Amino acid sequence: MELKNILEGIGRSDTRSVARAISMVETQSMHMERNLIIKGIYPKTGHAGIIGITGPPGIGKSTMIGNLCKMISSENFKVSVLAVDASSPFSGGSLLGNRIRMQENLSRYGVFMRSLANRGLNGGLSRAVWDAVDILDAAGNDFIIVETVGAGQADLDIVNLADTVIVVLGPGLGDQIQAIKAGIMEIGHIFVVNKIDREGSFIAMKDLEETLAFTTQGDWKIPVYGINSLTMEGYDPLISGIKNHTALAKSSPDFRRKRYKEEMRIVMQDEVTRIINRKFNEMILENGEIDSLIESKIDPYSAARKILKGLDC
Amino acid sequence: MELKNILEGIGRSDTRSVARAISMVETQSMHMERNLIIKGIYPKTGHAGIIGITGPPGIGKSTMIGNLCKMISSENFKVSVLAVDASSPFSGGSLLGNRIRMQENLSRYGVFMRSLANRGLNGGLSRAVWDAVDILDAAGNDFIIVETVGAGQADLDIVNLADTVIVVLGPGLGDQIQAIKAGIMEIGHIFVVNKIDREGSFIAMKDLEETLAFTTQGDWKIPVYGINSLTMEGYDPLISGIKNHTALAKSSPDFRRKRYKEEMRIVMQDEVTRIINRKFNEMILENGEIDSLIESKIDPYSAARKILKGLDC
Repeated sequence: MELKNILEGIGRSDTRSVARAISMVETQSMHMERNLIIKGIYPKTGHAGIIGITGPPGIGKSTMIGNLCKMISSENFKVSVLAVDASSPFSGGSLLGNRIRMQENLSRYGVFMRSLANRGLNGGLSRAVWDAVDILDAAGNDFIIVETVGAGQADLDIVNLADTVIVVLGPGLGDQIQAIKAGIMEIGHIFVVNKIDREGSFIAMKDLEETLAFTTQGDWKIPVYGINSLTMEGYDPLISGIKNHTALAKSSPDFRRKRYKEEMRIVMQDEVTRIINRKFNEMILENGEIDSLIESKIDPYSAARKILKGLDC
Repeated sequence: MELKNILEGIGRSDTRSVARAISMVETQSMHMERNLIIKGIYPKTGHAGIIGITGPPGIGKSTMIGNLCKMISSENFKVSVLAVDASSPFSGGSLLGNRIRMQENLSRYGVFMRSLANRGLNGGLSRAVWDAVDILDAAGNDFIIVETVGAGQADLDIVNLADTVIVVLGPGLGDQIQAIKAGIMEIGHIFVVNKIDREGSFIAMKDLEETLAFTTQGDWKIPVYGINSLTMEGYDPLISGIKNHTALAKSSPDFRRKRYKEEMRIVMQDEVTRIINRKFNEMILENGEIDSLIESKIDPYSAARKILKGLDC
């Protein structure tokens, strides 16, 4: 498929073109194509509401996302899903199965889903997620759901990428909730307690509500929704909450500036990393620093500063 | 504690100084102190054998590391342990408990242990691990064990950092072994099947041995050891294997060049990232690119190239 056709395909929401473009931004060596794709689609971005969903594994996020997609698309909104996975070679097998089930489920409602993992991306995962979101945005999605689970840095990066971050917890977290609080109370705009038919969910909700009682984010009071993915209890207020927050984020100049600034920072880091990797071999050979390192004649930070002086960004 | 005292303390293996120095290299904002520490200790590095240990969670790596440390220190070798953890805010609680138990266990044999996580490191985890290994090396350790588990990119980075990479698997992996193979057969110098008293371990070992039958790494034929951490079966041959491979790696000029080159690359990336983050605000304001991005007048890659032209590395 030619680049021109891919760009044209994205413009008319062609699934094959969108999938091909995402594959390209995932491939570190195709940075020329990537630059042209993002340049081509960028004027069409800025419409979609970007919803980040995070939470511990096994809490029912995939089922919840399936239900949200079904409800959102039944209102004639276009929605797509990106799943961002940890790259550990040891979690490959089990996650993959889960993703395939999720994809089959979503395709029944005509929802496009794609999973991204940082295998082979050399730290470029965050950048690829931003690119993929831009592509889905340009393809005319009203909402883009980005799910991360145990993806390390990506769990935290989602805050910068999404308009609305939803943290999903379960009733059975018990002691863990204290540990969790420390890390995630600041990142969520909306909290969900899943499986509210289960024992302990009432306490989990009260506990969260009390912790959040005095927390506001500008004009936003952080809500806690209890849901049940079988009876669909709690989904209507949750969807209203999502729409309200996304609209608020989209209309806030401060928020938008912050988000675009972060995209810029990630892209710049990625560009510099690419330049360094490309020029690295010749620079090292010219400077002969490696042998000095092996013989401990110089330390890596002093050597880095010496080499970087000669680097043409 | 003054920097001079810390450096002097590392030289005489003082645990408090080593711990303080590692805390400093973990703190992104203390890069000046870090540069001085690494510069100060670097002439004393290059002695330790660095052993990377990786494998799926719950396979008994911590117990195995405890046993290895006990045996190695009883031979009057000095050994320390670095545990590199995933940063997901959701795994914080459970991992922490495990690390505390491990630390208590190791301290009984006089073994220093420290865990590193990338919380707050903004992608600088790999760099901090290299620094910590250098500090432990300069502190006179004969062996440094670096354990990673589900730490995403860090699971793969360990290959470049360690002289010897040990992949630990269990008998109960079943189907997962196929998925695992794809990702890790290339990264291990030594394979261990833990819990060989359990059903399925014989098949797991045979399966691994057959897969590895035609794989050699230079002069090294990859061994598979079966161990039992209760009866200590298999530990003697495993320790011999580790010593043999570490000695081989240390004596290979190609291997050493590759390792130091990777350290250099990681340090340079980190330096450039730091420079970009520091200069970012002023650059953006000067160039007014964010507003152009918000209005989709320019795309992030084109903007990055424009800004990077003005970057003084």
